[in-house]
Amino acid sequence: MPLRLNSRDAGFEAAFAALLAGKRESDEDVDAVVADILAAVRRDGDAALLRYTARFDRLELTAETLRVPEAELAEAAGRCDPATMEALALAAERITDYHRRQKPEDMDYRDAVGVRLGHRWTAVGAAGLYVPGGTAAYPSSVLMNALPAKVAGVERLVMTVPTPDGVINPLVLAAARLAGVTEVYRVGGAQAVAALAYGTATIAPVDKIVGPGNAYVAAAKRRVFGTVGIDMIAGPSEVLVVADGDNRPDLIAADLLSQAEHDTAAQSILITDDADFGDAVALAVDEQLVALPRSAIAGESWRNHGAIITLGTMDEAVALIDRIAPEHLELAVADPDGLAKQVRNAGAIFLGRHTPEAIGDYLAGPNHVLPTARSARFSSGLSVLDFMKRSSLVACDAESLRAIGPAAVLLAEAEGLDAHAKSVALRLAVNPEPS
Amino acid sequence: MPLRLNSRDAGFEAAFAALLAGKRESDEDVDAVVADILAAVRRDGDAALLRYTARFDRLELTAETLRVPEAELAEAAGRCDPATMEALALAAERITDYHRRQKPEDMDYRDAVGVRLGHRWTAVGAAGLYVPGGTAAYPSSVLMNALPAKVAGVERLVMTVPTPDGVINPLVLAAARLAGVTEVYRVGGAQAVAALAYGTATIAPVDKIVGPGNAYVAAAKRRVFGTVGIDMIAGPSEVLVVADGDNRPDLIAADLLSQAEHDTAAQSILITDDADFGDAVALAVDEQLVALPRSAIAGESWRNHGAIITLGTMDEAVALIDRIAPEHLELAVADPDGLAKQVRNAGAIFLGRHTPEAIGDYLAGPNHVLPTARSARFSSGLSVLDFMKRSSLVACDAESLRAIGPAAVLLAEAEGLDAHAKSVALRLAVNPEPS
Repeated sequence: MPLRLNSRDAGFEAAFAALLAGKRESDEDVDAVVADILAAVRRDGDAALLRYTARFDRLELTAETLRVPEAELAEAAGRCDPATMEALALAAERITDYHRRQKPEDMDYRDAVGVRLGHRWTAVGAAGLYVPGGTAAYPSSVLMNALPAKVAGVERLVMTVPTPDGVINPLVLAAARLAGVTEVYRVGGAQAVAALAYGTATIAPVDKIVGPGNAYVAAAKRRVFGTVGIDMIAGPSEVLVVADGDNRPDLIAADLLSQAEHDTAAQSILITDDADFGDAVALAVDEQLVALPRSAIAGESWRNHGAIITLGTMDEAVALIDRIAPEHLELAVADPDGLAKQVRNAGAIFLGRHTPEAIGDYLAGPNHVLPTARSARFSSGLSVLDFMKRSSLVACDAESLRAIGPAAVLLAEAEGLDAHAKSVALRLAVNPEPS
Repeated sequence: MPLRLNSRDAGFEAAFAALLAGKRESDEDVDAVVADILAAVRRDGDAALLRYTARFDRLELTAETLRVPEAELAEAAGRCDPATMEALALAAERITDYHRRQKPEDMDYRDAVGVRLGHRWTAVGAAGLYVPGGTAAYPSSVLMNALPAKVAGVERLVMTVPTPDGVINPLVLAAARLAGVTEVYRVGGAQAVAALAYGTATIAPVDKIVGPGNAYVAAAKRRVFGTVGIDMIAGPSEVLVVADGDNRPDLIAADLLSQAEHDTAAQSILITDDADFGDAVALAVDEQLVALPRSAIAGESWRNHGAIITLGTMDEAVALIDRIAPEHLELAVADPDGLAKQVRNAGAIFLGRHTPEAIGDYLAGPNHVLPTARSARFSSGLSVLDFMKRSSLVACDAESLRAIGPAAVLLAEAEGLDAHAKSVALRLAVNPEPS
């Protein structure tokens, strides 16, 4: 049974705080192992990659076969179901269209005293996309991670994917091709992250690494942060569904289960103002679990981490939403816009009764890489901005330097930085006020 | 003597690569100590803060005196030199004006099939600003870290600053007041970072921590990343000056020294196409070093990490600039815009002969918190965006869900995620195509 809370109960605040504080991931301590792997790849390059791939993926490769040949990428689509390929192409098109609108604008202006100011955005030179292997190799994830980089203008887009026992999902390769990935390597784990960060003879280093992975991949990304940029360290997925009693319980139950089936550590929470509706959803979840192929996973997630929270009134919802700061927020209520406007912390908001969260996983357009574990309080979903950086611009002429230079000299002197003061003061002396 | 390189010399590529790879910071291993401090603050709260403050800052505080009283903040400006306060106010005004232009816009549109899409930006709820104590407590740094948060709309802006032996710089408090900081606490080091991340009885936790600090502060920020957001982990400061022979050597020498005086680990590099000019700058640096109050620091930086690189022609500059990816780039050449347009990696670009880098440290307008250690390849200076996050928005009605839902069902099935497919398919069944 999932947790049932009622905001009118005396112990509600304590129980809700415990729900928030609950950990869903084991703190697997892989840091020492990962440090060794990173050091080995840095030292031995390709040789280390081949050694680890033989050991972990039971696959004997050479420096030549590490890379998936261009021909294999080109023919992958032909090995996939045509209707699925068409759906994938629609997804790529919709994701591209949405992300194009995120492209930031440059700025260049002259202020009141004549100083020219601005900034200029440029794409990172090369990005690495980590794709997990086996059952977790999702083509949708390839699109969601690669397309923002492509839209940003990243020239070199490198994908690494482990292929245990040599098996690779053709749909993943087809998605990579569709998304403009320029190089694909059969390597995974911390060793793939090391190759992307430090480079080897075969894999040139990148500037930024994105993509989901297990505890080893996460620890490796945390360690190479600084040498390269990384995206967020993603935790297990979550959905918070806010639904009133006017919804069909089976639809809301399906939404909760679509999150629960990801992972036993996933979390699905329902907030409602109608206790009977909550009961009906709980029942519908149990009914649907019976027929669900991934019922073992979904059931464990729902029992251990699921929650149904009944409120006295929907007005109480906003404060709880912001404290949960959900990765996905579904607002299946009469006035979803009115509620959404008050929400501060949520990775993605799905408005109204006709917008199941799953539509956002595939092809609504916005990115499905979203902040988990309450990090929507301070971070955002993956975007084009993650693959660009900004250079600020300043240009003074002699006159505008005269306008602001003396104040800079004063501040530099107050901070005891005399060379700073001198670099401004000397120029003011060279070009004094015209008489 | 700084390093002298010439791009026409046989060993240039190797020597330049070595310059890039050179480490300027010792890898002080403080991680175990920091882990202990974080755990202690998490467990003991205020008591741990007071204990560490007594030990490291030789200062006996209580939970009541941890916070700098409102009255002390209010009267700080009166204890500062009026001309300096005026300069600080001008800086605050200019920084605010520049950062206001960074505020991102919300997006809300309906696509071709009727799906409503968009995103909404909101400010983080609370931000923590770490300010180093002692001689490194710079009022300009308070403005540069706090004002973007203020402009973003952050409601709670908390500053921590260690006050060794009880000493605090009134200009730092005045800057905090000017920048809209709402709470100031006399605590530093890893213990301050822990308090900001986990909270104590006296210091409520924040959502994001920014600001420079020593190795302990950096290690603590790296460890609490995930619980809260953090800005970059800043390394020692750098400037790359590209200057032709038409510059006055003494001005360029002053610019190089204004970076070198920060820290013995700072780095100043000159790129020129005129070997004689390079010699003249080297001479001018030595001359200016004699009279510089911080000559010991600046001299050590210049001797150990400084470099003068002479090119056959300025056309070679862009490739080297992008490989260095400097924090600060000064372009003291005839056509700075033409050169800047080709540059991809630089935190801030200072255009022309009248724009010393120091003007950007104080009051040009753009932020002086910039990516160091080649991280301009993938990251940007501090901005309003660092204190905001984006929620994506999706809204389907029955009709638009019919347009894109079937493709989502196909993709979910291809990924073996049946509950995902069902959450969409059920809705399509409830609202079939109108006949």
